[in-house]
Amino acid sequence: MDVGFHGLSAFPLTPADEDGVVDAEALSRLIERLDAAEVDSIGLLGSTGSYAYLSRAERLRAIKATVESLKGKRPLIVGVGALRTSESVALAKDAEAAGADALLLAPVSYTPLTQEEAYHHFAAVAGSTSLPLCIYNNPSTTKFSFGDELLVRLAYIPHIRAVKMPLPADMAFKDELERLRPRLGEGFAIGYSGDWGASQAVMQGANCWYSVIGGLLPVPSLRLLRAAQAGDATEVERIEAYFQPLWSLFQEFGSYRVVYAAANLLSLTHRQPPLPVMPLSVSDCARVEEALAKLSELDGLPAATP
Amino acid sequence: MDVGFHGLSAFPLTPADEDGVVDAEALSRLIERLDAAEVDSIGLLGSTGSYAYLSRAERLRAIKATVESLKGKRPLIVGVGALRTSESVALAKDAEAAGADALLLAPVSYTPLTQEEAYHHFAAVAGSTSLPLCIYNNPSTTKFSFGDELLVRLAYIPHIRAVKMPLPADMAFKDELERLRPRLGEGFAIGYSGDWGASQAVMQGANCWYSVIGGLLPVPSLRLLRAAQAGDATEVERIEAYFQPLWSLFQEFGSYRVVYAAANLLSLTHRQPPLPVMPLSVSDCARVEEALAKLSELDGLPAATP
Repeated sequence: MDVGFHGLSAFPLTPADEDGVVDAEALSRLIERLDAAEVDSIGLLGSTGSYAYLSRAERLRAIKATVESLKGKRPLIVGVGALRTSESVALAKDAEAAGADALLLAPVSYTPLTQEEAYHHFAAVAGSTSLPLCIYNNPSTTKFSFGDELLVRLAYIPHIRAVKMPLPADMAFKDELERLRPRLGEGFAIGYSGDWGASQAVMQGANCWYSVIGGLLPVPSLRLLRAAQAGDATEVERIEAYFQPLWSLFQEFGSYRVVYAAANLLSLTHRQPPLPVMPLSVSDCARVEEALAKLSELDGLPAATP
Repeated sequence: MDVGFHGLSAFPLTPADEDGVVDAEALSRLIERLDAAEVDSIGLLGSTGSYAYLSRAERLRAIKATVESLKGKRPLIVGVGALRTSESVALAKDAEAAGADALLLAPVSYTPLTQEEAYHHFAAVAGSTSLPLCIYNNPSTTKFSFGDELLVRLAYIPHIRAVKMPLPADMAFKDELERLRPRLGEGFAIGYSGDWGASQAVMQGANCWYSVIGGLLPVPSLRLLRAAQAGDATEVERIEAYFQPLWSLFQEFGSYRVVYAAANLLSLTHRQPPLPVMPLSVSDCARVEEALAKLSELDGLPAATP
């Protein structure tokens, strides 16, 4: 199986009840949507997939439900971040045994980590399974900043094959890619999360869009991604206009809260984010509904989408 | 029992093995030291006590060992921070049932929390037991910043009786206390963590020193605290000089790593911090040893201390 660190990597929610018990049925429905749309990979148990809020047993339940739904048709990347190295190692082994194709690892911390500590954490997890691993560089949730030197050291570890980068402050993807590519090596995949910048990232040479909205609305997301991959700037700009209201809400409330509201509005799940994270207010949900309506005006979508 | 949000609140390590199983015997030894030195309270399962890295079952094991050692002689404050509100509520109930006298709650997060979300989280935990609760304001680990408005709203909740503040950027304790006291009310206790600033905080009117070093070396810590409480600036300055090398190391490496090294050097435990947090190097440990030697020169300590 192609490990899937390219194209559209779709990150679904993991619907769960108030105690963190995964709703496998609702998750399977989300996975089947992604499979039907033919996304390039599925990123299970990313930040959008609430990995940090779920126990080891519940994460395994989510993986098993997904593997059963996918039947090997799409590459499955599974997030294995945890505060303890020993826990991340156990999660990685669980994921491999349950049928994951690749791992995604964020340097979750409580005591802020040094670059050296993060290096040993990644080396231990990468060495514990035979699966390829993507570095999850997400300072907005982990508060950890990867120096270039650390990324270079990690890229020397055989199983570590990709990085999921945050949007650069000035959206200067080209500069960042030109700086990192020669140091990380040609076979090392560089992708981005932050949905509102992803089409530009791909136009400027990024390998992958690690996408929140792709996990819920794969059809219009793939339209945008394919236009970006083809280098069709006019079409990208045209499609981006339909996404714009959603991007504004992502930036205002965080994509996590907005995508839960959207999933509820679309009747894909009635589950809410884990408290203390609160659902959006009724009036903010109305704005999400408007943004979904705008996106549904994008021509050429199947009648039933988004 | 006086709930203990004043004077020296001593925060011990929670010694545990590589898998996070608490070493109850080593913990009891630390607790007995604190009891013998007559600290004003014990802050179990604070950041220094690795609460974020320990499971619910292991936290309960730590509380039970401490209650058994203390036999009700000192107020016991127990940290109940967790990512999920439901988990913090369960931890609070465990702590109350096991004999804790008070709770300490930090707004731990993965998805960054809004002020409103933190308010409801605290309200839910405070409402779940009859114990008084101290707000744990620790942006260096939680990355959450409390606005004054949020502190004021929380202080209206009957069980919430204290706050543990970080050192203000300019060490302007007096300004901060004068700003907060009238808004939080006279019965609301304001204390500080950040050991190198705590004597100044107490001299300027803070109620409590929530102390890392007090959890390991309670005798010299109490000397410093009592001088500060007495307003004896000359004596505070004299004692601070003996602590200074330790404070420098706290600021360089984080107090968590340094106090583990010190506990090992003093043969109080052979346990290390939870990986990925790494023990200090041999050469850095030698610097901790020098700092402990300097502190041991403080006159009037019992022969066997620190």
